[in-house]
Amino acid sequence: MDYFTILVSAFISTCCYFTAAHIIPGFRDMFLKANLGGIDLCKKDKRKVPESLGVIVGCVFLVGMFFFIGCFYYLQQEKGFSNSDFVEFLTALLSICCMILLGFADDVLDLRWRHKLLLPTIASLPLLMVYYVNFNSTVIIMPKLVRPWIGMSLNIGFLYYIYMGALAVFCTNAINILAGINGLEVGQSIVISSSILMFNFIELTRNSEATQHAFSIYFIMPFLAASLALWKFNKYPSRVFVGDTFCYFAGMTFAVVGIIGHFSKTLLLFFIPQIFNFLYSVPQLFRFVPCPRHRLPKYDPETDLLNISTTEFNKKDLGLLGTIFVQIFKTFRLISWSEKPDGTVTTNNFTLINLVLVLRGPTHERTTTQILLGVQLCCTVVAFMIRYPLASFFYDA
Amino acid sequence: MDYFTILVSAFISTCCYFTAAHIIPGFRDMFLKANLGGIDLCKKDKRKVPESLGVIVGCVFLVGMFFFIGCFYYLQQEKGFSNSDFVEFLTALLSICCMILLGFADDVLDLRWRHKLLLPTIASLPLLMVYYVNFNSTVIIMPKLVRPWIGMSLNIGFLYYIYMGALAVFCTNAINILAGINGLEVGQSIVISSSILMFNFIELTRNSEATQHAFSIYFIMPFLAASLALWKFNKYPSRVFVGDTFCYFAGMTFAVVGIIGHFSKTLLLFFIPQIFNFLYSVPQLFRFVPCPRHRLPKYDPETDLLNISTTEFNKKDLGLLGTIFVQIFKTFRLISWSEKPDGTVTTNNFTLINLVLVLRGPTHERTTTQILLGVQLCCTVVAFMIRYPLASFFYDA
Repeated sequence: MDYFTILVSAFISTCCYFTAAHIIPGFRDMFLKANLGGIDLCKKDKRKVPESLGVIVGCVFLVGMFFFIGCFYYLQQEKGFSNSDFVEFLTALLSICCMILLGFADDVLDLRWRHKLLLPTIASLPLLMVYYVNFNSTVIIMPKLVRPWIGMSLNIGFLYYIYMGALAVFCTNAINILAGINGLEVGQSIVISSSILMFNFIELTRNSEATQHAFSIYFIMPFLAASLALWKFNKYPSRVFVGDTFCYFAGMTFAVVGIIGHFSKTLLLFFIPQIFNFLYSVPQLFRFVPCPRHRLPKYDPETDLLNISTTEFNKKDLGLLGTIFVQIFKTFRLISWSEKPDGTVTTNNFTLINLVLVLRGPTHERTTTQILLGVQLCCTVVAFMIRYPLASFFYDA
Repeated sequence: MDYFTILVSAFISTCCYFTAAHIIPGFRDMFLKANLGGIDLCKKDKRKVPESLGVIVGCVFLVGMFFFIGCFYYLQQEKGFSNSDFVEFLTALLSICCMILLGFADDVLDLRWRHKLLLPTIASLPLLMVYYVNFNSTVIIMPKLVRPWIGMSLNIGFLYYIYMGALAVFCTNAINILAGINGLEVGQSIVISSSILMFNFIELTRNSEATQHAFSIYFIMPFLAASLALWKFNKYPSRVFVGDTFCYFAGMTFAVVGIIGHFSKTLLLFFIPQIFNFLYSVPQLFRFVPCPRHRLPKYDPETDLLNISTTEFNKKDLGLLGTIFVQIFKTFRLISWSEKPDGTVTTNNFTLINLVLVLRGPTHERTTTQILLGVQLCCTVVAFMIRYPLASFFYDA
């Protein structure tokens, strides 16, 4: 393991933290003046909060990485280091930089829904291109159970690139749709990145030659540092909002380390709440069940608590798929349900945030975020349990 | 010379042109809605024109380059190509990508003057970092005249990095301050990039192994294509404005090809009008002579012509340096001058655009742009004359 380079990265990350924490307040007025701001709907005083501050921490992260690549390249060359790893490193950074640019453009221009799928695909292009030329290893190892039929491994060819592109699209949007209350976007990113970091260190201790995990650390440490600085201002009560920029930036960082670190399956284990939230949202996202423009919880200024937000429809208007989904959710008690004699149904919007409120009743915003981050943390524990003890059932150690 | 790769680049550039030309109109309303727009002051109808469309062509350029790096890397690896060139290539792209991001942030947030110097420095970091490790060749070849005293070459060490950083700052800002009338920013970038392209082809014909010139072509061709698409909408009467984003993007592209192509001195020869404009502006930029907030020419709606814009001050208030500058300009008849008995002076603002109007009298906006682009073109001819026949006096062939 290359302790010295990791120390350099830790030092640069510390600088990123202090720089970001120092400059964010100064940019608040500038963002408001540029009309980048939004009303915090879950507060009594409907004050305007600057939005898209993610671009600032994104830039701080980039500058930190620029200094790091200099040191890194210098240190590695002294050891007769192969340039092809460095090429991968640079393309990963290029993907992240491009994603911050496109995310900020999305925040400013308020792009359409379909762009949300296109932008991460564009940004992941350089990485996929170089992966294609550098490795083009599209072989996946099969779990033990299916080996008698399929064999030890399977070359899925072009599908592998589709999978990697989809990973980028998923990671970016998964964070973007589990959002909307103070601190949630940054909080979950902090939990996920800490989990990845822990995983990388465990892997490095088991095999000190696993350079791909060191690579991942070089990206995740400054990311975590910049996010912690942002957390200071974004936690309840938010003094800044992070915007799509941050969600894209975070998601892309996770996707690239998953890809260049060759641990995309493990990465997805850290996204259990996001995956659940996505699956839970599917009926509304694909319009099997009516979906209002905003699915944020409803704020009650009297009690200062969040309540579920609801959608209303007539039972007869649901299609076949909608009925099936609703039936499943009802069976598992995942939704609220109130039905009038004429068939008009009121149910909560299908988001993880609303689900917490369905299960717990009206809850304070700060507590809601804490619960969700607690869930994320528990899922990380589950993820490590799946990854380590259970994985040996399916794969060789 | 690697014709096939150049052909691939030409094909991708063509795609960039058509894509940019196709999508720009669709973004016009989106930019206006996002409050990114400005009044065209030199028109009778004070209509609002969308601003910062440079970010769109910047993104098209990036996507084109992403596809190109895939092809390029593939083609080069087949030939047993060294990765260290590719590393340089990627860092150059990273610098440009970062510059577009920072430029767009500047447009949206309307950053302060001192940031204009900081942003290009940040964006050029990755390139300088990698240059440092990859080459660290800071030796400059001396002109024949001074060789008896200094020797054949001189290692200027750290100063060389200062020089490269300054080159990035200069190129980006030089285009940014020779701007303000329809089509000028894009027009000059088209002339400069065509000049660079011609120079690269000449060098490649003289020495087909000069890969650094091929590298430059791979960047400049798609840049030229994207700029030509933007020109369609930015030429008189402008339907879109390009914003600081484009000026930064263009300047950075020129700077990186100058650096990785090792022809920064020749590059500066293509910037003669910009250098003149900068030197001419110095007294106002550094406040030796009073400088109004805007130095754009004044539009006369009666005649539809542009007139010089002026600054007023009392002769006695000029400091020593101000007096010297003004005296020099007056001697060479580079400024208008009208003096009242009490010492109040009215003179034009010191920009190249105003100088054209001083020399020619009131002129139509379209003609003014044409004259300035004509001057740029003549300077290119001069640049080639200096570079080729005259350079042999100073350097060995």
